[in-house]
Amino acid sequence: MLSPAVDNLVTQLTRLPGVGTRTAQRLAFHLLQRSTEEALALATAIEDVKERVRFCRDCGNLTEEERCAICRDERRDHSLICVVEQPADLISLERTHEYRGLYHVLGGALSPLDGVEPEHLRIDELFKRVERNGVQEVVLATNPNMTGEATAAYLADRLRGRARVTRLASGLPVGGDLEYADEVTLGRALTGRRDMEP
Amino acid sequence: MLSPAVDNLVTQLTRLPGVGTRTAQRLAFHLLQRSTEEALALATAIEDVKERVRFCRDCGNLTEEERCAICRDERRDHSLICVVEQPADLISLERTHEYRGLYHVLGGALSPLDGVEPEHLRIDELFKRVERNGVQEVVLATNPNMTGEATAAYLADRLRGRARVTRLASGLPVGGDLEYADEVTLGRALTGRRDMEP
Repeated sequence: MLSPAVDNLVTQLTRLPGVGTRTAQRLAFHLLQRSTEEALALATAIEDVKERVRFCRDCGNLTEEERCAICRDERRDHSLICVVEQPADLISLERTHEYRGLYHVLGGALSPLDGVEPEHLRIDELFKRVERNGVQEVVLATNPNMTGEATAAYLADRLRGRARVTRLASGLPVGGDLEYADEVTLGRALTGRRDMEP
Repeated sequence: MLSPAVDNLVTQLTRLPGVGTRTAQRLAFHLLQRSTEEALALATAIEDVKERVRFCRDCGNLTEEERCAICRDERRDHSLICVVEQPADLISLERTHEYRGLYHVLGGALSPLDGVEPEHLRIDELFKRVERNGVQEVVLATNPNMTGEATAAYLADRLRGRARVTRLASGLPVGGDLEYADEVTLGRALTGRRDMEP
């Protein structure tokens, strides 16, 4: 409608998750109205990320070095590995400040229906790390949904006997409400109940 | 947390309207997961837009030529000018297929509190067009909000006697509900009531 360049920008923006045509148009106009310098800062940031960022050789986390800052950190517990689906999950866990071990980023969850088989994820690398590096415990922190649970079950099965295998607790979210909890979560909270500390 | 390049991309994305840190992170990870080619297509689209797109010499619409496709179109009614705040408003009006005149894009609305005075908008250019080109009617299609109404009042005042000046009708949105209409809109619908055609 306006110009091929604007139309193309709108098309490219609609490829982003959660961005429809209206939002893409709004973003495009915003970029048009900003100074060239500011708009190009975003373009350059995208280029930089694709040029510089790669996967950590050991854990699959994002990094600009060969090994990520967490794997390089000697103060962290290298006998403990937490398995997550995506780098974003790792960030969420780091924000808790409760975990001092290493991570392993699978790059997704098993989902045979979508064509995601074990060989598409960094699963072999996980087994090799556990084998080689005297890992004591593997915390499975895949998502508590269908594919995440299936992945956790698969990994637990394959890791049994090689290390202690644990899973993040399922239960009521803190600040949540029993009345509004779905029955599966509530069932998990019940079966996972803990002794009150005195 | 992850890498300076990712952090920078997240920062740049949060500058977009309606994008908070969480959304920016999600978009950044999405761009990281896409192929380099696909991600760079967005970067290139931004660069192209800033390089190629400029404002139409006559109406201020976005274009890649000196004059936009609408101003160049000889089949359109050049004696009719519709004044809008932004290029996006022009697109909305074009979508109605009800309008066959030209446009004039102000680039915003008057808002002295935010420091937007007549000289910051393409208002002088509008007066010159009306003066020079035998314009019969100016349709004021600024937004029906505070600043848009003030801008319309200012323009109507200055254009009086030079051309017929009209304003888009305010009233109930089609498909709307009297019960949920705000009183200002309902009041406008009442004062703007029209004779039923037989």
